[in-house]
Amino acid sequence: MSSERLIYLPLGGAGEIGMNAYVYGYGKPDQERLIVVDLGVTFPDMDGSPGVDLILPDITWLAERKDRIEAIFVTHAHEDHVGAIAHTYDQLGAPIYARAFTANIARRKMGEHGHDEEAVRVTGAWPEQVEVGPFKVGFLPMSHSIPESAALIIDSAHGRVIHSGDFKLDETPIVGEPFDPDLWAEVSKDGIKALVCDSTNVFSPNPGRSETSVGPEIEKLVRGHTDGIVVATTFASNVARVKTLADAGARAGRSIVLLGRAMRRMIEASIETGVLKDFPTVVSPEDARSIPRENLMLLVTGSQGERRAASAQLANGKYMGLELKEGDLFLFSSKTIPGNERGVIRIMNQLSEKGVDVVDDSSGLYHVSGHANGPDIARLHDIVNPQIVVPMHGEHRHLREHVKMAESAGRMGVLAVNGMMIDLSGNAPKVAEYIETGRTYLDGSVQIGALDGVVRDRIRMALNGHVLVTLILDEEDEPLGDPWCETMGLPDMGTSKAALVEVLEADISQFLGRADAKTLRDDDKLTEALRRIVRKSGQDEIGKKPEVTVVISRMH
Amino acid sequence: MSSERLIYLPLGGAGEIGMNAYVYGYGKPDQERLIVVDLGVTFPDMDGSPGVDLILPDITWLAERKDRIEAIFVTHAHEDHVGAIAHTYDQLGAPIYARAFTANIARRKMGEHGHDEEAVRVTGAWPEQVEVGPFKVGFLPMSHSIPESAALIIDSAHGRVIHSGDFKLDETPIVGEPFDPDLWAEVSKDGIKALVCDSTNVFSPNPGRSETSVGPEIEKLVRGHTDGIVVATTFASNVARVKTLADAGARAGRSIVLLGRAMRRMIEASIETGVLKDFPTVVSPEDARSIPRENLMLLVTGSQGERRAASAQLANGKYMGLELKEGDLFLFSSKTIPGNERGVIRIMNQLSEKGVDVVDDSSGLYHVSGHANGPDIARLHDIVNPQIVVPMHGEHRHLREHVKMAESAGRMGVLAVNGMMIDLSGNAPKVAEYIETGRTYLDGSVQIGALDGVVRDRIRMALNGHVLVTLILDEEDEPLGDPWCETMGLPDMGTSKAALVEVLEADISQFLGRADAKTLRDDDKLTEALRRIVRKSGQDEIGKKPEVTVVISRMH
Repeated sequence: MSSERLIYLPLGGAGEIGMNAYVYGYGKPDQERLIVVDLGVTFPDMDGSPGVDLILPDITWLAERKDRIEAIFVTHAHEDHVGAIAHTYDQLGAPIYARAFTANIARRKMGEHGHDEEAVRVTGAWPEQVEVGPFKVGFLPMSHSIPESAALIIDSAHGRVIHSGDFKLDETPIVGEPFDPDLWAEVSKDGIKALVCDSTNVFSPNPGRSETSVGPEIEKLVRGHTDGIVVATTFASNVARVKTLADAGARAGRSIVLLGRAMRRMIEASIETGVLKDFPTVVSPEDARSIPRENLMLLVTGSQGERRAASAQLANGKYMGLELKEGDLFLFSSKTIPGNERGVIRIMNQLSEKGVDVVDDSSGLYHVSGHANGPDIARLHDIVNPQIVVPMHGEHRHLREHVKMAESAGRMGVLAVNGMMIDLSGNAPKVAEYIETGRTYLDGSVQIGALDGVVRDRIRMALNGHVLVTLILDEEDEPLGDPWCETMGLPDMGTSKAALVEVLEADISQFLGRADAKTLRDDDKLTEALRRIVRKSGQDEIGKKPEVTVVISRMH
Repeated sequence: MSSERLIYLPLGGAGEIGMNAYVYGYGKPDQERLIVVDLGVTFPDMDGSPGVDLILPDITWLAERKDRIEAIFVTHAHEDHVGAIAHTYDQLGAPIYARAFTANIARRKMGEHGHDEEAVRVTGAWPEQVEVGPFKVGFLPMSHSIPESAALIIDSAHGRVIHSGDFKLDETPIVGEPFDPDLWAEVSKDGIKALVCDSTNVFSPNPGRSETSVGPEIEKLVRGHTDGIVVATTFASNVARVKTLADAGARAGRSIVLLGRAMRRMIEASIETGVLKDFPTVVSPEDARSIPRENLMLLVTGSQGERRAASAQLANGKYMGLELKEGDLFLFSSKTIPGNERGVIRIMNQLSEKGVDVVDDSSGLYHVSGHANGPDIARLHDIVNPQIVVPMHGEHRHLREHVKMAESAGRMGVLAVNGMMIDLSGNAPKVAEYIETGRTYLDGSVQIGALDGVVRDRIRMALNGHVLVTLILDEEDEPLGDPWCETMGLPDMGTSKAALVEVLEADISQFLGRADAKTLRDDDKLTEALRRIVRKSGQDEIGKKPEVTVVISRMH
């Protein structure tokens, strides 16, 4: 009962793509020493989280066990893996381990939030291991769409777990280490307890393609365009792609301009940490203005249609003194993440209005995914040959499909979603506990719970509009003057063709004329009655029941 | 100068996909007699139009010329072509012409809005022509993803225009008339002034596939699933698809259940108008409950993830007493329209949680588009051989590509977006005028202009929250009691760890204590000052500048 156990607990990333946060623990039940793997963010949207700036995992469970946390390990520098480290540092306070490139990015984040950058400790690649409490953890290089991505080898007295991180099987990734099947076989040869594994592309039926495969096509496209400016957008963190694009531009005699903060930051970090060599010379936007258009290539942020990024601004007008026009070419060397289609399409149409030719990845020529496809995942299963497959980094449907894949090959698979604590100690995984998890919103400068009702109220105002009722009552609880209504987000006029506020005020006045003393004395009753009247009048007049706020002032 | 001219004016659908509304006119400038082709809607979204029920074209220009409108022609019964007829009937009042199936749907809409159903006049197919003022108009049958879709042959003294409507080139469409190239060549043989042409799939590089091609695959899938219920969703208006699905189910020994209002309405209209024959017997949801799961097939609405449709409800829980579970199969026999991805993915994950296997169209096996692809569009150009190609039914990028396609084949093309009135009279098209156009929101029961500021205010409240400030001033313009703040959609507490409303009230009180008599006397000045204070305090406390409504009550 009281013997040590090895647990796995996803707090984010299992049942969604984004906001990764995985916990491993070893020790006696409820006394496990803990490590955290990745602390990422996900992004808000108008549908579910209007006005929110960032979405973080709910780390209440971890914060309550702060003294048991040995360390945080960050597999790579994508926002959905590293984005929350500075926002949660006050609550967790544990040292953060990462490889050099990831650490460079992580330290910038820590510094921006006034935290000690030295809390981020640079760690070498496998066979180096960090000993933290009952764990020994090593960073096993793995190809992905960002430099120095790594899987984690997590050793404890209950055996070895491999946490894949995000990965693809790319033996020629241009930047960063290639996937090395022999090394993976070597670390797995004594038996792997569990492979906790990326599920993103589990539904893609064909093996993934190498980053190298897009180079020749991009080069052909860039060379073929001899008129105006060539612009290309991709994920700034995809340093290999940025290099491929820049090299193609340079070889075609174009000067390279980097636009957008993330683009400059990523290239800077890559050069500082030595992962990127031989990047073509870059010219500033200012200098670019004096270079002929046909000798310019812009590499810009905003491939997902983000409103404030360089792509959107170039599509919308000028950016840093540069303006696109007829004869220019704009390449999306990226895939549109589901949910971002509208923003991307908006940019494409704005570019079309300017006469700019747009090339997207619908041909499959100019982008490859950073995640392993179905057959690649199966290949990794075969190489690692784990006792248990634990899918992560996926929505429910991805995790489920991944479990099916494992089981169809005769392996044990376990579908663990956020909050499901899995005991990996025995011969078969079992659910140890269900932890309450959720999302924390960074809203302006405040962190609020996703279920606090704040955002729900915003959504309600957006859907229904807002009516404010102000009523002053005298010492005898009699209305003093007329009630006053203000509306926000509602039509001025409804079916009766009178001003909506006047109709509402008349209906309230009529009610007040008839209301008994008991109601007028009781703020709650009166508020509820006025709210009901406004909602009913709203329904009659404009076919909508608005949100209502009632302010009652009593002159005593 | 004063001679007759032929004009084309898109008021919706040119520069967007949706909300189609095209005007043709013939006569002396500014005295043209007008016909309207299609009056459709588009759908709101949380990003741009929260709380809105439907989006209609802005028909101000037409309404101001009501006495010049001869007729409205509806090419087919998709919502983006027929959805606005009842909402605009009061303002336009013109007779509506449509073929039988379209008229059946249109009349239901008119009836629901209390309009005379007889305003919709059933018209036969070509060679029948309707004479309306200076125009003779005929419905030329054309294949699409709904029965009895038609192009319009629009004859005037300035020659023949063909308005393609929505189309694909399907010679075996299962339901509705096949595309008949000979008929199209025949009507075009004396020369076509302009082909006003669907651009939706202009970027699709391969010829489109016939509706017939999905039948065998669907049949194989349905036959192969022998466990539980089979559910399939598609656009209810795609009657051919619904029939294919139903036939596959019936042949596999399953009873067919139709779920969702649109599904029942479309099948009903198809049977009433004779376009659909031999539809398998349908059982009610009530009767379905006593049928074994492996003998049931549900055909359901909500392929686009609509929250209240049958698909969403089945994914979420029970619907009409039916509940899905492990062993069931759910087929999306549809494409997800860009922008709807999140809703569709939500359903897929909910189904996954229930253990339901989901099949989507990513394999291309279970859905074909209803629109002509690039090569099909080019083929129609060749058959019709028009003097001018006028792309419509597309975003700007589609229209631009379509013009390029026409020009690359040596034809004249003109990129006309909403509001651009084109004079088609001469040998080359020319822009006659720019008309102010836009969108009208149906919001509850009220129509409001998209730029009226109502929805903008809702979006602002959703992004920034809302603070209400109430202040009472006595006869001497001195504050009576303390100012009062209420918040909606904002965190309770900010960086100072005091209640946000208390911080706001304290800052306002402090200001009032120092304010001069002139400010306190002036409602506008005072309101502006209070708003500024609240926004600044908001920024300091919670990192957000809220929307502010100030209510000042004066006791005199």
